[in-house]
Amino acid sequence: MQKNHRPEEEGFTVTPWEVEGDIDYEKLIEDFGTEDLNQDLLDRIEKMVGDTHFMLRRGIFYSHRDLDRILDDHEEGKKFALYTGRGPSGHTHVGHLMPWIFAKWMQDKFDVDLYFQLTDDEKFLFNFDSELEDTYSYAIENAKDIIALGFDPDKTHIFIDTDFIHQLYPLALKVGKRLNFSNVKAVFGFDNSTNVGSIFYTAIQSAPCFLPTELEGEEVPVLIPCGIDQDPHFRLTRDIAETIGYTKPALLHNKLAPSLDGTGKMSASQPKTTIFTTDKPEDVDEKINEAFTGGRISAAEQREKGGDPSICAIQNYRYYIFESDDEKVDSIAERCRKGDILCGECKQLLKENINRFLSEHQERREKAEKMLDDFLVKDCEQEFRS
Amino acid sequence: MQKNHRPEEEGFTVTPWEVEGDIDYEKLIEDFGTEDLNQDLLDRIEKMVGDTHFMLRRGIFYSHRDLDRILDDHEEGKKFALYTGRGPSGHTHVGHLMPWIFAKWMQDKFDVDLYFQLTDDEKFLFNFDSELEDTYSYAIENAKDIIALGFDPDKTHIFIDTDFIHQLYPLALKVGKRLNFSNVKAVFGFDNSTNVGSIFYTAIQSAPCFLPTELEGEEVPVLIPCGIDQDPHFRLTRDIAETIGYTKPALLHNKLAPSLDGTGKMSASQPKTTIFTTDKPEDVDEKINEAFTGGRISAAEQREKGGDPSICAIQNYRYYIFESDDEKVDSIAERCRKGDILCGECKQLLKENINRFLSEHQERREKAEKMLDDFLVKDCEQEFRS
Repeated sequence: MQKNHRPEEEGFTVTPWEVEGDIDYEKLIEDFGTEDLNQDLLDRIEKMVGDTHFMLRRGIFYSHRDLDRILDDHEEGKKFALYTGRGPSGHTHVGHLMPWIFAKWMQDKFDVDLYFQLTDDEKFLFNFDSELEDTYSYAIENAKDIIALGFDPDKTHIFIDTDFIHQLYPLALKVGKRLNFSNVKAVFGFDNSTNVGSIFYTAIQSAPCFLPTELEGEEVPVLIPCGIDQDPHFRLTRDIAETIGYTKPALLHNKLAPSLDGTGKMSASQPKTTIFTTDKPEDVDEKINEAFTGGRISAAEQREKGGDPSICAIQNYRYYIFESDDEKVDSIAERCRKGDILCGECKQLLKENINRFLSEHQERREKAEKMLDDFLVKDCEQEFRS
Repeated sequence: MQKNHRPEEEGFTVTPWEVEGDIDYEKLIEDFGTEDLNQDLLDRIEKMVGDTHFMLRRGIFYSHRDLDRILDDHEEGKKFALYTGRGPSGHTHVGHLMPWIFAKWMQDKFDVDLYFQLTDDEKFLFNFDSELEDTYSYAIENAKDIIALGFDPDKTHIFIDTDFIHQLYPLALKVGKRLNFSNVKAVFGFDNSTNVGSIFYTAIQSAPCFLPTELEGEEVPVLIPCGIDQDPHFRLTRDIAETIGYTKPALLHNKLAPSLDGTGKMSASQPKTTIFTTDKPEDVDEKINEAFTGGRISAAEQREKGGDPSICAIQNYRYYIFESDDEKVDSIAERCRKGDILCGECKQLLKENINRFLSEHQERREKAEKMLDDFLVKDCEQEFRS
């Protein structure tokens, strides 16, 4: 088993339920035992699909497990499916959209099915004060955001765990039988006070790795685009996959979207430094106004010495999500460093960008409400492409 | 938490998955913290339903938790439901029928619904070499035996866990969130090598305690007739029931049916000393012929000194299951002690008794195959009395 990050050792923590401190992403590759998403692989993808994505180019997706195997298979005409998920602890924030936008690009380019898990059970089990009814409601809210991104309803299967457990449970049992308390303790840092639902939960998150194979009646391995913080789950899945007769899931890991205060990851539990997809323009304006930047103490000093875009939350938002044009990102950074643009103007540009995006997204989100049945697969009424 | 039995301490083990040694049932009442099923309670039942059952009279059901509360409620016209179960690790043996026969009597006398859980998941998780497909098949086989006993299809809801998990899972999550590894470790003797499915499993066995309340939309507490070995599960359930908004389940515990070799409990894993409901007359004859008795070394000595029915497996079979007439049980014991009946004749009487029962049971069991749909409730197609 690879080790888990604990703050006392490394100065940062990355587990599926806790991300804290200044993350050393290269160190995570080493500690988790994943592979660097190198230029050869990026070139290969570009050659295969005739396009690239800014999140690949910029190293936002930066690490993987067995992506090369998935690409080999695809070249040989073998099927694969995408699988990703979301823990519905609250409303969707723009950081969540990042890997979903990428997943949609992958679906479009590789023409594959996407299985999207909404883990209402997980968020109920891991947050003592939560109610299952609430995490379920958030799952529905989150589903609207997923749908609003324009996924293909014929190829996209969104499921909420408690709605789909009849399908998931037999697979989770097969996984759960092969993992013991020592395994999950080592990987997640559990102890004797961890509740038994949480102890079993990783088996539920593993189950969809084998679902396409079960549903399609032929081997359909999955590729999982997800935050690097989710890797521990699938490291366990990979350890036991072959023992229970399935192919190991492949992964493509992204770095976590930064928060507006410039420290750590965008988090729904810190609403003032996080932009939600349901925010109104005035909320966005206020949050951006308060954001941490690389600006100087005075306008005069900034004009003279320039700002530091490398530590700026505004520039990060552009880089990670809101500006796909590399030249625009570079040019504004350059202007900042030269003192040609001050934080006020720079923030204004981002606000316009975000509010334009959100206005469109919220319109699509409203329409998505009526499309829920086209996307949500449930026990007793699921329909899959054969 | 009450302590668990370990053989090194007490000379016997009683857990839901292991029963070994010469069980001191009174000691179990003390250690598990249950109540003696005393004469007052037996009299009260007899007065309420105008009848008694030999398993009550003989102290085969001998211990309880909150039975008095259930009887109070029933007198006040409040509802309760029966809940029992079976781990489908193999074919049903006659020892399994014992509590089921009693459950049917309770259903008839109190006119209540019975929920019957078949835990294919449990037997898959706790037996490393088992396959889920096999435990599921055995669950179907076991269901035929349950139905063959004549339960009322309108009031009897049999469910196989993997067929009914959509209903069970939300309840299991609520239980599983309130139990931690320390709790299940203390009660079941788990350790770090226990698989995470087994660690969570007790929550699945707890779920049906709250199912009647959920399905009927009003408070319907359960009374669980079950082997005393199952008490640890429900001790945990009782600890957390009120915290999650439900009434504690009540229990009525039976002693475990003895094996034909005179040591320990009847067990499907020891087919030679266990009579299965699917056994042919010649199988029964052979097993009874080999059974341990309280006979003497020679016929002459036995005629002179008499036998010892108190240690005799044949007499136990009569006492526990196959002879409801107390006088007949006593009279044969008396004849044995006096040397008036030898083991051969005594065995012959039991063989006839068992083979008559099994011949009728097997006929009903065949008909039961066509009635499975009337009894088995499943996700997506369950129908309950409102």
